[in-house]
Amino acid sequence: MPRMKAAIFVEPGRIVLDDKPIPDVGALDALIRITTTTICGTDVHILKGEYPVAKGLTIGHEPVGVIEKLGSAVQGFTEGQRVIAGAITPSGHSAACLCGCPSQDGGVNRTGFQAMGGWRFGNTIDGCQAEFVLVPDAMTNLCPVPDELTDEQVLMCPDIMSTGFAGAESGRIRIGDIVAVFAQGPIGLCATAGAKMSGATTIISVDGIAGRLEVSRRCGADITLNFHDVDPVAEIMRLTDGRGVDVAIEALGTQGTFESALRVLRPGGTLSSLGVYSTDLTIPLGAFAAGLGDHRIVTSLCPGGKERMRRLIGVIRSGRVDLSAMVTHRYKLDDIEAAYDLFAHQRDGVLKVAITP
Amino acid sequence: MPRMKAAIFVEPGRIVLDDKPIPDVGALDALIRITTTTICGTDVHILKGEYPVAKGLTIGHEPVGVIEKLGSAVQGFTEGQRVIAGAITPSGHSAACLCGCPSQDGGVNRTGFQAMGGWRFGNTIDGCQAEFVLVPDAMTNLCPVPDELTDEQVLMCPDIMSTGFAGAESGRIRIGDIVAVFAQGPIGLCATAGAKMSGATTIISVDGIAGRLEVSRRCGADITLNFHDVDPVAEIMRLTDGRGVDVAIEALGTQGTFESALRVLRPGGTLSSLGVYSTDLTIPLGAFAAGLGDHRIVTSLCPGGKERMRRLIGVIRSGRVDLSAMVTHRYKLDDIEAAYDLFAHQRDGVLKVAITP
Amino acid sequence: MPRMKAAIFVEPGRIVLDDKPIPDVGALDALIRITTTTICGTDVHILKGEYPVAKGLTIGHEPVGVIEKLGSAVQGFTEGQRVIAGAITPSGHSAACLCGCPSQDGGVNRTGFQAMGGWRFGNTIDGCQAEFVLVPDAMTNLCPVPDELTDEQVLMCPDIMSTGFAGAESGRIRIGDIVAVFAQGPIGLCATAGAKMSGATTIISVDGIAGRLEVSRRCGADITLNFHDVDPVAEIMRLTDGRGVDVAIEALGTQGTFESALRVLRPGGTLSSLGVYSTDLTIPLGAFAAGLGDHRIVTSLCPGGKERMRRLIGVIRSGRVDLSAMVTHRYKLDDIEAAYDLFAHQRDGVLKVAITP
Amino acid sequence: MPRMKAAIFVEPGRIVLDDKPIPDVGALDALIRITTTTICGTDVHILKGEYPVAKGLTIGHEPVGVIEKLGSAVQGFTEGQRVIAGAITPSGHSAACLCGCPSQDGGVNRTGFQAMGGWRFGNTIDGCQAEFVLVPDAMTNLCPVPDELTDEQVLMCPDIMSTGFAGAESGRIRIGDIVAVFAQGPIGLCATAGAKMSGATTIISVDGIAGRLEVSRRCGADITLNFHDVDPVAEIMRLTDGRGVDVAIEALGTQGTFESALRVLRPGGTLSSLGVYSTDLTIPLGAFAAGLGDHRIVTSLCPGGKERMRRLIGVIRSGRVDLSAMVTHRYKLDDIEAAYDLFAHQRDGVLKVAITP
Repeated sequence: MPRMKAAIFVEPGRIVLDDKPIPDVGALDALIRITTTTICGTDVHILKGEYPVAKGLTIGHEPVGVIEKLGSAVQGFTEGQRVIAGAITPSGHSAACLCGCPSQDGGVNRTGFQAMGGWRFGNTIDGCQAEFVLVPDAMTNLCPVPDELTDEQVLMCPDIMSTGFAGAESGRIRIGDIVAVFAQGPIGLCATAGAKMSGATTIISVDGIAGRLEVSRRCGADITLNFHDVDPVAEIMRLTDGRGVDVAIEALGTQGTFESALRVLRPGGTLSSLGVYSTDLTIPLGAFAAGLGDHRIVTSLCPGGKERMRRLIGVIRSGRVDLSAMVTHRYKLDDIEAAYDLFAHQRDGVLKVAITP
Repeated sequence: MPRMKAAIFVEPGRIVLDDKPIPDVGALDALIRITTTTICGTDVHILKGEYPVAKGLTIGHEPVGVIEKLGSAVQGFTEGQRVIAGAITPSGHSAACLCGCPSQDGGVNRTGFQAMGGWRFGNTIDGCQAEFVLVPDAMTNLCPVPDELTDEQVLMCPDIMSTGFAGAESGRIRIGDIVAVFAQGPIGLCATAGAKMSGATTIISVDGIAGRLEVSRRCGADITLNFHDVDPVAEIMRLTDGRGVDVAIEALGTQGTFESALRVLRPGGTLSSLGVYSTDLTIPLGAFAAGLGDHRIVTSLCPGGKERMRRLIGVIRSGRVDLSAMVTHRYKLDDIEAAYDLFAHQRDGVLKVAITP
Repeated sequence: MPRMKAAIFVEPGRIVLDDKPIPDVGALDALIRITTTTICGTDVHILKGEYPVAKGLTIGHEPVGVIEKLGSAVQGFTEGQRVIAGAITPSGHSAACLCGCPSQDGGVNRTGFQAMGGWRFGNTIDGCQAEFVLVPDAMTNLCPVPDELTDEQVLMCPDIMSTGFAGAESGRIRIGDIVAVFAQGPIGLCATAGAKMSGATTIISVDGIAGRLEVSRRCGADITLNFHDVDPVAEIMRLTDGRGVDVAIEALGTQGTFESALRVLRPGGTLSSLGVYSTDLTIPLGAFAAGLGDHRIVTSLCPGGKERMRRLIGVIRSGRVDLSAMVTHRYKLDDIEAAYDLFAHQRDGVLKVAITP
Repeated sequence: MPRMKAAIFVEPGRIVLDDKPIPDVGALDALIRITTTTICGTDVHILKGEYPVAKGLTIGHEPVGVIEKLGSAVQGFTEGQRVIAGAITPSGHSAACLCGCPSQDGGVNRTGFQAMGGWRFGNTIDGCQAEFVLVPDAMTNLCPVPDELTDEQVLMCPDIMSTGFAGAESGRIRIGDIVAVFAQGPIGLCATAGAKMSGATTIISVDGIAGRLEVSRRCGADITLNFHDVDPVAEIMRLTDGRGVDVAIEALGTQGTFESALRVLRPGGTLSSLGVYSTDLTIPLGAFAAGLGDHRIVTSLCPGGKERMRRLIGVIRSGRVDLSAMVTHRYKLDDIEAAYDLFAHQRDGVLKVAITP
């Protein structure tokens, strides 16, 4: 049985490169030979034991690669095609998919919905920090990559870009909106780019790292605030003459950013939350207008599926957005443990690392 | 200067019937002679000093009456017409109004939005528990009442019905949805009726008072749960085979009902909040799927304006919904202090009281 | 090779009962033993040669039956379960499905969309006026039927009810809307029921057959107009004081009904079109306000998929709508040619016929 | 009584500069001293007698100016402020306004809606090709202009830009959409810019004038097609691999462009129509998929009101869009007849003319 290298979760604190069998290909699956992948903040949560996964699982949910083998029932693709798949791999046929909520796909045996049920790679099935990955429901999830784009150019599509853009889309940003984006890590930067794509005309981004605020400007921020220099809530209210913003995007996952996002929201505005929280959240009574402010709080899990990927690739291809500056470091799969070390400690101004076998 | 009787806030614990001048009519105003009005739960908050208003203010925001006098710039109405006006009286010309958020109207001198800014009667201007009330921006707010409907039949339109229905509408209920409504006071009952009007096919309502659950069935509930008998969260999850509901409406304003509404929500579902909270709220991490459940939390302040009133009167007129059972007690304006006493203590199975001068 | 009886298109004017092999079951398919089915107006178009299909094709797209055999890759169902499938059978994995437009499913080998591409039964693959039918993409399309409902109670779900309700939904009817429905055949009657479910408070239905207008009242019409007695356009404008309706539903497919629907529409209103047209359409300049009326014209093809079917079954089960009066005649499959004869000539007040093997 | 110069409709073929009294200022009005205005294609229709207005009416609906005098009931503005008002001046208090359809404002004495009822300047009341114009419902319609922007920079906001952007917005363009825009006159160019602001990633624009296609590229078109060189329908279908576009915008008002827009639409796509038609329209049966293509045809009248103007000014201010290249010619009000002559004959590559008193 042929074997491959894979980054495997062993126990909290340890993700190691090991080898395991190349998986068999079921009727609806596709086996992809990974050519480029990356590490996500969620993977670091897994590494630290903050998000539990099974021991022995291959980590990673951002695949770029080439179709090695197609399942017997898969039509519409050919072996050798270069493809990506989203971090979230909806089945296409679940109640959740058919009800407009594919990320919350409950699986074939349920009539209902399961929170985060659509997130399978590196969560409930083996992921893609490996030489090969099995893509389930391949007809729903594989998306061809045009020749003119490099692996790195589409590397953000599966997760970071899809999630960040969803923050703008779920917030239902309209032309002329004033938008604040709290935190300018990879997802926050993509949310900033997504807000610009959606028609926001004043985008105020907030972070504590000057280098990220610089990238933020290139992604579309009109005004950047370093929270070491100003109180972002007070400053945003000043900049908007006390009106507040139409949409505030939370892109970190803490009480502080959540609460700030709510405090700068105009009555009738929308808080679009992207962060993964690790504690209960508090909604302050005043900022919430006692429940009478016509506020909306919306959350989004990264949208997946081949059509989503096609659209995001279209954005890259059009030149409307350039996310190539996001890849700050490159590693071989053999050195992925070093890549985790750099990324987990956010050293050297890292935004995203590209991993190639 | 002619004077009138009015229920006036004196200090926490005291709303008294007193007399004050009949107000002058400005260019955009209409003076209405009140024929029927009622007391709202919010008025009880004012009475108890939980919601601050100016001393001497006339309380009440649910007017049915007859046009006594029109302002010089008001067109399209005639003196003597029977009308209602919403509890919320948007100007029609503010940025908030023109941006689709009239309840959060910021007033003429602001370019922006003000939380609850559209609520003026019995809050920032004199209300309608009186012989006369001045309706501001009359062209935006007066709605004629058809002869065939009695005062009591339209008495719920200005606030209770508009708010309750907004809970269903903001939740974007679709045909075939499963909906839970937490609390079956007047607003919760109207939310139940609104959920049925919106196409929900399984409506589960929750309260602790058997009489209210009976009325709830007549308003459209398919299943009623008395929280003295069952744990509503567990029971709703059982009834839905672990799936949860598409939309949960909160109609009380407590941490308990808010949290229960979130706990019964399917991934991708909407919590539509109507209650007036008096404390900070906690969002439990698990029920919120750590922010990854594609959940929406939406809040609604009672929609006002003459077009809203026209539509609600249309609902009553069509016979689709019968809210006349909501008026359980009747008082003269002279006896309004006794009415407050009954209503504030929720004695004798009271739902709503009708007050007539 | 076992054989079965099936109603087969031979040539324009001839659909005959013949026998053909029971089909093989592919990996994603399910073989259903039909227990009840019906004839649709579209089938009559096929019979008359107005809509071309391949010779030898089995006709029919409204199946109720029992799972006889499941494909090797199908999970989540068991043989022996009673099920329905929609008239439209989207794959679940096409670009159209993933883009929110499953009825226009372009098939596995296309990246795009195909008009009516989701309609396969009795159009591009064998249909269900037979002893057995093969359901493609079974995991996306099979929907269990609760024991408490009879075959006839769910017989309208696959097409008539799904289409009629879509007319109300695509029209985005809101609480308090005034709605006109032109033509009260089976689809128009379901559109009337769907308009009521969506919150319309004045529903005006139009037809030329008194019996249908009677059924229309039971489905939710508040006012019925017989076009032999009144000019529907003039009468609707009179009934609405010259305002027009918020939403007009066209449920026949002729220039006359299309144009009338446009003529009664208020500026800013929506014409929701359900009919299958057989000629070019003319939009009169005046009724269209020269293109400046903020009008919308929307068309809907019957939505399919198991989640849609589940919701419609939920409507039936809730008792909100009772469509059982729609089945006016019953035939054995052996007598289906007689059933076609009755239905094609609209004799004896026929609305829908139930066909059982 | 003081008098002013104004461009007045005398009879078909004749708009002349004459003088008339400066109007009195009603309670809700504002008198604006015009500093810059322009001529619209609609004005040319009026000139030619194709759109009837009263003899003696002042033409023009695109005002930039300074508040000369405020009505007695107008608050929130000060005399001397520089402002614009939209071409459409909704009242703010009509049923249409309160129902989300302000452009179709039916006036104070109607409960309903009137096609184009919100268009008053140069249609039902005196317009702004004059030294002064009276803005009705001033609190709803006046929008301050920031000092940093010139008159010419905001001159497109009242009509061209608001209309063109509405084409993109009503089409509900999403990130990643493929969009075609038929005709690249001033409105089509703004529609192209609006499509880009809305997230379209492939914008294909069509016109017959090379100069306009050049401007179109600067406004956001990715591909431009000159219909003298290629068949736009065939070429768009080729460019999209037979898929068609998600949204097609019609910006001329002819059967040819309307029909082409429909023919390039994917099933499930939206035809967003902006043109002012002068004949009945034909919908070809095939392109319309016999009514079964899930197509939408939406029309938009230029949105007005101060909040709309504020948002468009925000777009200009943000630098996202630069429409200053649209002003190709400049005239004094005294020479407006010459300006009409140039503009009506589309000489010298004219796009828009700036008129200053």
